[in-house]
Amino acid sequence: MSHTAELIAVGTELLLGNIANTNAQYLSEKLSILGINVFYHTVVGDNPQRLKQAVGIARERADIIITTGGLGPTYDDLTKQTLSECFGRKLIYHEDIAAQMRAHFAAAGYELTENNFQQCWLPEDCTILENDRGTAPGCCFTQDGCTVIMLPGPPSECQNMFDTKAEPLLRAMSDDIIVSRTLRVMGIGESAAEALLRKQMDSLQNPTLAPYAKTGELELRITAKAKSEAEARALIAPVEAEVKEILGNKVYGVDVPNLESVCLRLLLEKGLTLGTAESCSGGLVAKRITDLPGASGAFPGGIVSYSNHIKTSLLGVPEEMLSEHSAVSEPVARAMALGARAALGCDVSIATTGVAGPGPDSSGNPAGLIYVAIADQNGAHVQKRQIAFRSREQVRMAAAQTALDMLRRYLTGLLSLS
Amino acid sequence: MSHTAELIAVGTELLLGNIANTNAQYLSEKLSILGINVFYHTVVGDNPQRLKQAVGIARERADIIITTGGLGPTYDDLTKQTLSECFGRKLIYHEDIAAQMRAHFAAAGYELTENNFQQCWLPEDCTILENDRGTAPGCCFTQDGCTVIMLPGPPSECQNMFDTKAEPLLRAMSDDIIVSRTLRVMGIGESAAEALLRKQMDSLQNPTLAPYAKTGELELRITAKAKSEAEARALIAPVEAEVKEILGNKVYGVDVPNLESVCLRLLLEKGLTLGTAESCSGGLVAKRITDLPGASGAFPGGIVSYSNHIKTSLLGVPEEMLSEHSAVSEPVARAMALGARAALGCDVSIATTGVAGPGPDSSGNPAGLIYVAIADQNGAHVQKRQIAFRSREQVRMAAAQTALDMLRRYLTGLLSLS
Repeated sequence: MSHTAELIAVGTELLLGNIANTNAQYLSEKLSILGINVFYHTVVGDNPQRLKQAVGIARERADIIITTGGLGPTYDDLTKQTLSECFGRKLIYHEDIAAQMRAHFAAAGYELTENNFQQCWLPEDCTILENDRGTAPGCCFTQDGCTVIMLPGPPSECQNMFDTKAEPLLRAMSDDIIVSRTLRVMGIGESAAEALLRKQMDSLQNPTLAPYAKTGELELRITAKAKSEAEARALIAPVEAEVKEILGNKVYGVDVPNLESVCLRLLLEKGLTLGTAESCSGGLVAKRITDLPGASGAFPGGIVSYSNHIKTSLLGVPEEMLSEHSAVSEPVARAMALGARAALGCDVSIATTGVAGPGPDSSGNPAGLIYVAIADQNGAHVQKRQIAFRSREQVRMAAAQTALDMLRRYLTGLLSLS
Repeated sequence: MSHTAELIAVGTELLLGNIANTNAQYLSEKLSILGINVFYHTVVGDNPQRLKQAVGIARERADIIITTGGLGPTYDDLTKQTLSECFGRKLIYHEDIAAQMRAHFAAAGYELTENNFQQCWLPEDCTILENDRGTAPGCCFTQDGCTVIMLPGPPSECQNMFDTKAEPLLRAMSDDIIVSRTLRVMGIGESAAEALLRKQMDSLQNPTLAPYAKTGELELRITAKAKSEAEARALIAPVEAEVKEILGNKVYGVDVPNLESVCLRLLLEKGLTLGTAESCSGGLVAKRITDLPGASGAFPGGIVSYSNHIKTSLLGVPEEMLSEHSAVSEPVARAMALGARAALGCDVSIATTGVAGPGPDSSGNPAGLIYVAIADQNGAHVQKRQIAFRSREQVRMAAAQTALDMLRRYLTGLLSLS
């Protein structure tokens, strides 16, 4: 039987435009993988009457209602009370949640104010969904054929609770097993990939093949529905092989979170250390590497050389080279990478220099022009790109992404510096 | 008379989680400033029956309906047809739009396929909203006390058409002006702030005072409705003064985007340069500073000293200090900040060292323990914090936020290093 979920986001801050409803995007994508239909999203303010109305409408057209937001300690956090009223349930006080909260606040050295205990009231006979990223628990109950799941509003809490607590409950409601594999692709746009894969995308029914454009890269998801996981995986395998055949080494990983995690795994496997020299990306490459647990095993550190002075003093880029070629140039990118290797004592180094924008730099280089370099004991390689300028963020992201992909190609033997 | 708008976004890509409904955020913020209530957002797929249902519900509870998406040339772009059916209007073919489209495609050298002419059909007796960023026109009509505005889906087209074509129409409908001011606050949680401001939050009607928890900080928004902007600002001023009185220098800025922008503005005003030495934050502080246009005027660069070796070689932290106190310690944070000042040749430096987690470090320091330091020519100051460990991201964000707030306090004279 196929299920239909409706997402109700609760929060006046959404209706005032303070934040976008990114939880709806996250949950919709996950529900789509689970084979659960989503026909409507609704956003409603911190207002019990309007929330009740939204719940009433949702019950008419869905058998799963997922709310996000309104579980916190403040007076306008009314989701649990309102949903409980809609379904005629009492709220029950949970002393164990209060005890956990006291311990948590004591450990952090924060003052625990009385309003926090509002979070201890939950609908009777519900499954409590623990919050590993915050203090407000979520909950789930099923009544009259409708399953209600309440998740917190802050995206990190909402998404973590969905993945670890709610998704297993939803999986158990389905007869079919849904398996998906996500191929991550660098160096080809959505429409170019679609042109190459048009036949597969149009003709495939089970598994399906669908593209998702992400910042600086592309995701291709193959999703199969079957009675067992093994059967689903058997449906996926030939399609995955075909896509890899077509896109070649543009596919940088399958079911991996991102490019930096692929790079870190390769560095650790090969016992190599990485150093970074960043100008236009301003620390973003180092930040992305150190986002990962275990980064210290392969990343001693980096230098953010935003000024010419630091390019010279710490990376040894000759002053004459800077004045002759400007900081955004092929020779400077190369010298930065070579200099970083020496200064940081690492095996391989990557460097970025470019014009993040919005305007051109003082040498007249246009916004979006970037040079990315890699160096090892054998030499260096530089790549030039002109990014269509849309925002500083996109230029910086493209510089970091290009540097990491160059590292990935080096570590997998696609690029050699001899 | 106060108006109420409902936003209906049309697009299956939203329900599949391919994109977030950022148009709703943009339009909501603009509508809020226009003094138009928004009580609901709805997202519905490219499905005429479900769109009709959503329009029917919206007509019951709003006198302005704004749709986004579904105006394009493909078979699933059904918004104009469906809304016209809902309101019993015919679609009229506009030869002038077809002529414009032919000229536009000829100029761009694109092929004009037959389906593009679908965009020339518009509801009878509507105001055509020209699209300066694309080819699909929008439209507006009022019937039976309900004003319908249809905008295209791509954010740049939607937002530009709203600002230049729809907003003037809406402004003409409204009597009131809405003004809001946002106070950004560091160093106090949402519930603690609410406890201090309970009286104001509960009793104020115009202006209103509302808290929004953000990562590592708090936003307090004061919103007033009046007949003129001056009158609205006069209502806000005493409340803003009262909140500042209560929260003191925890309020780091009003109507500013973030802490780093306040720090950069102060650095530029004082003609001071900043350097960073980052261990646990791994480049995040440098990244946040260089996110800002103009960062190069005050930020020569930074060092990401993830390994002990780089703490010694580039920052001059004595090896004995590292072995005696461990890298996550008060003396090492101090030595990093002092060493960064020397290595980077900057006026003031900030340093972070800590355990990002998930596990304790090799010296047994627990995840979430951070030391943050600042140094100038007179000396250094170190602050220790134990962050309740939830994720690496949160510990790293807290370290960066603490460092930037320390810098802000230094630059505003709240912290002196003599």
